[in-house]
Amino acid sequence: MNSIKIAVLGLGNVGKGVWKILRRHRNMIKEYIGVPIDVKKVLVRDVQKKRDIDVPPHMLTTNFDDILLDEDIRIIVELIGGLHPAYEYMRKAIEMGKHVVTANKAVIASYGRELIQLANERNVLLRFEGSVGGGIPIIAALTRSLAANEIEAVVGIINGTTNYILTQMTRYGMDFNTALKLAQEKGYAEADPSSDVEGEDAAFKLSILAFIAFGVQVPPQDIPREGITRISEKEIQYAAQLGYTIKLLAAARKHDGKLDLHVHPALVPNTHPLAAVNDEFNALFVKGDAVGELMMYGKGAGSLPTGSAVVSDIMDVASTMMSGSTTPYMYRNAREKLQINGEGEGEYYIRLEVVDRPGVLGKISTVLGNYGVSIASVVQRGKDERVVPLVLITHKVDRKRLDLALEEIKKFDMVEEVASILRVESHSN
Amino acid sequence: MNSIKIAVLGLGNVGKGVWKILRRHRNMIKEYIGVPIDVKKVLVRDVQKKRDIDVPPHMLTTNFDDILLDEDIRIIVELIGGLHPAYEYMRKAIEMGKHVVTANKAVIASYGRELIQLANERNVLLRFEGSVGGGIPIIAALTRSLAANEIEAVVGIINGTTNYILTQMTRYGMDFNTALKLAQEKGYAEADPSSDVEGEDAAFKLSILAFIAFGVQVPPQDIPREGITRISEKEIQYAAQLGYTIKLLAAARKHDGKLDLHVHPALVPNTHPLAAVNDEFNALFVKGDAVGELMMYGKGAGSLPTGSAVVSDIMDVASTMMSGSTTPYMYRNAREKLQINGEGEGEYYIRLEVVDRPGVLGKISTVLGNYGVSIASVVQRGKDERVVPLVLITHKVDRKRLDLALEEIKKFDMVEEVASILRVESHSN
Repeated sequence: MNSIKIAVLGLGNVGKGVWKILRRHRNMIKEYIGVPIDVKKVLVRDVQKKRDIDVPPHMLTTNFDDILLDEDIRIIVELIGGLHPAYEYMRKAIEMGKHVVTANKAVIASYGRELIQLANERNVLLRFEGSVGGGIPIIAALTRSLAANEIEAVVGIINGTTNYILTQMTRYGMDFNTALKLAQEKGYAEADPSSDVEGEDAAFKLSILAFIAFGVQVPPQDIPREGITRISEKEIQYAAQLGYTIKLLAAARKHDGKLDLHVHPALVPNTHPLAAVNDEFNALFVKGDAVGELMMYGKGAGSLPTGSAVVSDIMDVASTMMSGSTTPYMYRNAREKLQINGEGEGEYYIRLEVVDRPGVLGKISTVLGNYGVSIASVVQRGKDERVVPLVLITHKVDRKRLDLALEEIKKFDMVEEVASILRVESHSN
Repeated sequence: MNSIKIAVLGLGNVGKGVWKILRRHRNMIKEYIGVPIDVKKVLVRDVQKKRDIDVPPHMLTTNFDDILLDEDIRIIVELIGGLHPAYEYMRKAIEMGKHVVTANKAVIASYGRELIQLANERNVLLRFEGSVGGGIPIIAALTRSLAANEIEAVVGIINGTTNYILTQMTRYGMDFNTALKLAQEKGYAEADPSSDVEGEDAAFKLSILAFIAFGVQVPPQDIPREGITRISEKEIQYAAQLGYTIKLLAAARKHDGKLDLHVHPALVPNTHPLAAVNDEFNALFVKGDAVGELMMYGKGAGSLPTGSAVVSDIMDVASTMMSGSTTPYMYRNAREKLQINGEGEGEYYIRLEVVDRPGVLGKISTVLGNYGVSIASVVQRGKDERVVPLVLITHKVDRKRLDLALEEIKKFDMVEEVASILRVESHSN
């Protein structure tokens, strides 16, 4: 083999990054693998479109079959995004005996297991490091470097857009809409930001993490999620006064045969490494039974960071090809039947808006006590106003019990509003 | 193959961890590889010694040849530590066609390239993830997950003992000796702590990182290093007042064809992710030209965390064996001739003890200016004492120029002492 020929599907943000890295590091890659990697074809929607990148026009095609039927092309790099036709292209590529590298979170979250099994049957490789955490090698860590561990938890900040927004709100006291606008101006948020700010993007990635870490495949739409649209700058300030930073977390935690799985804003203690993950950065915190706590931090999106993951995957596939064998992809099977849970047990931050009157706290804590909810700390804010915020932090409690207690508390005359319920991320979870 | 037979050399702290993980996860490992991994023999110095671990006595041997000549044994796991006879055992194992997994920083730092080349020639695998950063998969990241990057810098906290000591000094205002004693009581420091506190251990690991990240092999003894024995709690307080935390850093940075390589205490801005790495934790900060900034954080030592890296390496070797091929180990060759530098350019924190008299600062800054050293900030501490500390932070400067300027400054009557020169780690380096 004089060179390994590949095709790239899609020439968007990540596609361009992949192209640039392959060009810039052609010699380094050749040295690593033994032969160079050459892009032979690039699938685009419109061949005529003006592009700020030097892809020779003869490489461009709008016809996937040009790529699929080209026997020279050994690796197909899928960077179109979205479920369809990306899924169909990948399936066909694998069936045709081609290796596939992708950064597509939607396809891997929904069809990951199926495609891996198909790839193993056809003796080809499927790699998808870029689908979660951009340049952070979390998939390699969970599948290879931590192979000797039973994974107990994966908790992460895996959406850069919301982390950027929350960071601006925290740092400058901005409100959500102002911070969102800034994120859009900076290119961190899309014109329609709903998938990011409502936690959908994070749920896709968490579905992949749950599969890789625990061997269970949960459809992303079944993962309970809450976005950050209801987080006010006031909440962030209250949290700060108590020593916490509010972050949008995606969490998968195993305990007692259950897997707690959810995306939600949470109070992270300032002493926790996740609290210091700011701006558009992502971080993944893993707990393994041998390694203990491990955190990886880096850029979770972007042309070059995600391109780094994709090109490293291509190099991995290429060097495996050169060795003349394909190791089947290792993934963990759920060894036990894991019951998929929502939030499960946790500590909670609750903000009530109450009429400032003696005895209020007593009545509320009695109801909480009746439902087995014990209080770790209480702060009453404001003075000389009719209605004041009452902030409680609970000890560990089942969310369902807490909700029942709050239903009852809501009915009190002096309780104007249960304004906020947020999970508290503790060091011990 | 019904099972893969391995031998473990050494039953110390890490050896016991490896044994425990292999036992605990026998089924998981079998599922991952296809066949179980069985320890057939364990090399110890004294077969009779009482051990708090359930290794069957018939497995123990004091004779390396029992292992070397046993054709059943396919992987040798070297966990004796130290240069000799560990190096000779590994060489012999490779020459005999056995795969080797090790956590030995001394041997890999001194003989890494030689052993890798030998392993590639003999078509066997050599893995050493556990040799740097304990359970943190930094070797896998640099060799595989970041393969598409040219690495620009690797900066880390890679000695848990000194990080524990500095954390106690920072958090509780302890002096060095009290913190060291505490570290010894907790088992984080050895009875003779010199290798840790004088930066030797970090230099070994940095030598390995420089090889893996930049393809250069620098003998650990040639790496300029400074330990933490001269860091006082006062220095830590001054640094804190300026917004910095003092950490022992191991740094390898490429610029202008040079490789700056050194181990030294440094002021890390509190906004830098490395500043939040506390207690016995390690962290590695990598800058790659595509991925940008990436940090990995975890337990850098200990029976189970290092055991996690070793067993994951064993599993990697075993699954490659099962696939019927051995991919040669990829390492980066220095593509350019890199000149090995000491500290190179940087920002510096300087504490002078000066007589509190008008005009002192003027004279000092004039001399610094003459040598091209410009000052970023100045803080004068203390009042109503004859001698007061004068703390300067410089802009980027070559260390040699700075030293020349300080030589001249030392000669002034009103300068009692150049009490401290510490590197400042900035975000942009």
